[in-house]
Amino acid sequence: MYAATLDQTAALKSVQAGTARQARSATVSQRENTSAPKGRTIAEDRKEGCVFLVGAGPGDPDLLTLKAARLIASAEVVVYDHLVGKAVLELIPASARRVYAGKEAGNHALPQHEINQLLVDLASEGLRVVRLKGGDPFIFGRGGEEMQALQAVGLRCEIVPGITAAAGAGATTGIPLTHREHAQTLVFATGHLKDDTVDLDWDALARPNQTVVIYMGLGALDIICRELVAHGLPADTPAAVIHGATTPDQRGIASTLADLPTAVREAGLRPPALIMIGNVVSVGDATVQTACAITSGANTPSQG
Amino acid sequence: MYAATLDQTAALKSVQAGTARQARSATVSQRENTSAPKGRTIAEDRKEGCVFLVGAGPGDPDLLTLKAARLIASAEVVVYDHLVGKAVLELIPASARRVYAGKEAGNHALPQHEINQLLVDLASEGLRVVRLKGGDPFIFGRGGEEMQALQAVGLRCEIVPGITAAAGAGATTGIPLTHREHAQTLVFATGHLKDDTVDLDWDALARPNQTVVIYMGLGALDIICRELVAHGLPADTPAAVIHGATTPDQRGIASTLADLPTAVREAGLRPPALIMIGNVVSVGDATVQTACAITSGANTPSQG
Repeated sequence: MYAATLDQTAALKSVQAGTARQARSATVSQRENTSAPKGRTIAEDRKEGCVFLVGAGPGDPDLLTLKAARLIASAEVVVYDHLVGKAVLELIPASARRVYAGKEAGNHALPQHEINQLLVDLASEGLRVVRLKGGDPFIFGRGGEEMQALQAVGLRCEIVPGITAAAGAGATTGIPLTHREHAQTLVFATGHLKDDTVDLDWDALARPNQTVVIYMGLGALDIICRELVAHGLPADTPAAVIHGATTPDQRGIASTLADLPTAVREAGLRPPALIMIGNVVSVGDATVQTACAITSGANTPSQG
Repeated sequence: MYAATLDQTAALKSVQAGTARQARSATVSQRENTSAPKGRTIAEDRKEGCVFLVGAGPGDPDLLTLKAARLIASAEVVVYDHLVGKAVLELIPASARRVYAGKEAGNHALPQHEINQLLVDLASEGLRVVRLKGGDPFIFGRGGEEMQALQAVGLRCEIVPGITAAAGAGATTGIPLTHREHAQTLVFATGHLKDDTVDLDWDALARPNQTVVIYMGLGALDIICRELVAHGLPADTPAAVIHGATTPDQRGIASTLADLPTAVREAGLRPPALIMIGNVVSVGDATVQTACAITSGANTPSQG
């Protein structure tokens, strides 16, 4: 049944490969020509164009949802971020236009308002656009802003959730994000540096019996560890950094809040990485990648 | 390629259907007979038995991961919870033994320590066990405890992450869980009542610029709303309750913290439900189910 779905989608109209700038220079005149009947689903009603904001998960293509895998296989245009896993990108059909819009720290291919406009322009051409984001589009993915930009001009947009990086890292290291004995509250925050400071609510994060996962915080690791201790978390609170969770490049290290920055420097861990803080870290093993991602490598759609 | 994978797995040894009690009465003598070579993957090395702790996602079977769908299709035994979606359960092959272990509020089919022992017993028989949990096994799924019980007796266990209910509810309602203008921190907590009280860190939850999602908290909704206002959140903070996110039964309602309990009573919303609190609620529409789940209904593997 999967094969049938993929065959159907492969028959969709192919488009020329292009860059972001070229894509944006296309005309939007097609939009005025559409006269699709009301009440049809997005998939049927292609002439009007639409954007699927799709979570690509943490990296392992086997952790794509069925829906995300099908949408990627049938995409006419894929606009993708820096954090989308390489093995996921390999699933994009050769017929689809690929547009890199993704930001790395300090190197924004396109600022957010230009990404918003790019999505509007592409959908206005009548295209079926897959906007691929690492993890989940609504968890630090700025999917809300892109959705609002599309809605503001009357374009249709559908959100497809994805496995967020924290869940991927938990699974591959055996570190549960919640646990009756250790943490019944789970906090996700971002650790982006801005003017060499990081703006977090330290009092809220430095609580007992919770797990804190900080996305995109490696550059601020020293500040984060120091502030959490200063605001009351014990210096020996278990903490870990996981790079590239669920990908073949996954590496991790566990330590304590006090010693984590030194341990990470010695191990040479680089972004993208998650910081996991709390007693749950002691339940799993941050340094290993368990079978979850390793065994799936032989069974991914791209290799099957 | 998917079809080939499914055909292979369909050829796996079938087992008799049975109940939890019957399953546990089976002998474990097979375990001593195994002599599998070292270094093989879990999937190859079946005689030893293993447990896959699999996140079944929020309900829509189209939101299963590729890996979860394949494991379900090849399972010999599936031990499943109350929160696993009906449409997901329909994907379990007829040849697989199905064991209901799932808890609803006030009606535990099996206490947690018996579930742990059941998994140990089944894997000790040399079976390939799929332990299906609603959402993600490590986010309020007690997957950590089950993993530890298996590890304690030397049995192998693999974690497969799933889309957590909050991400599903965000996608179908268009409520982003984080948003630069509204919330850069996201908190997940449980709202289980215990002796008519709910034990939450109200000071940590009642913060500005964050989104709070409370799982399993509908029975404590009055207390939750009252305490959050008492601890400083404005009474007009947007808040919503979403029942059955991503399933055909999804229903939701949005209000303010002060008025939410009355609105939920008038709407007659029942568990399972999520409580979403924060300014992001005003971005989406809690009362509608957007195309994410609606259009996928025609394309799910069970119907394709």
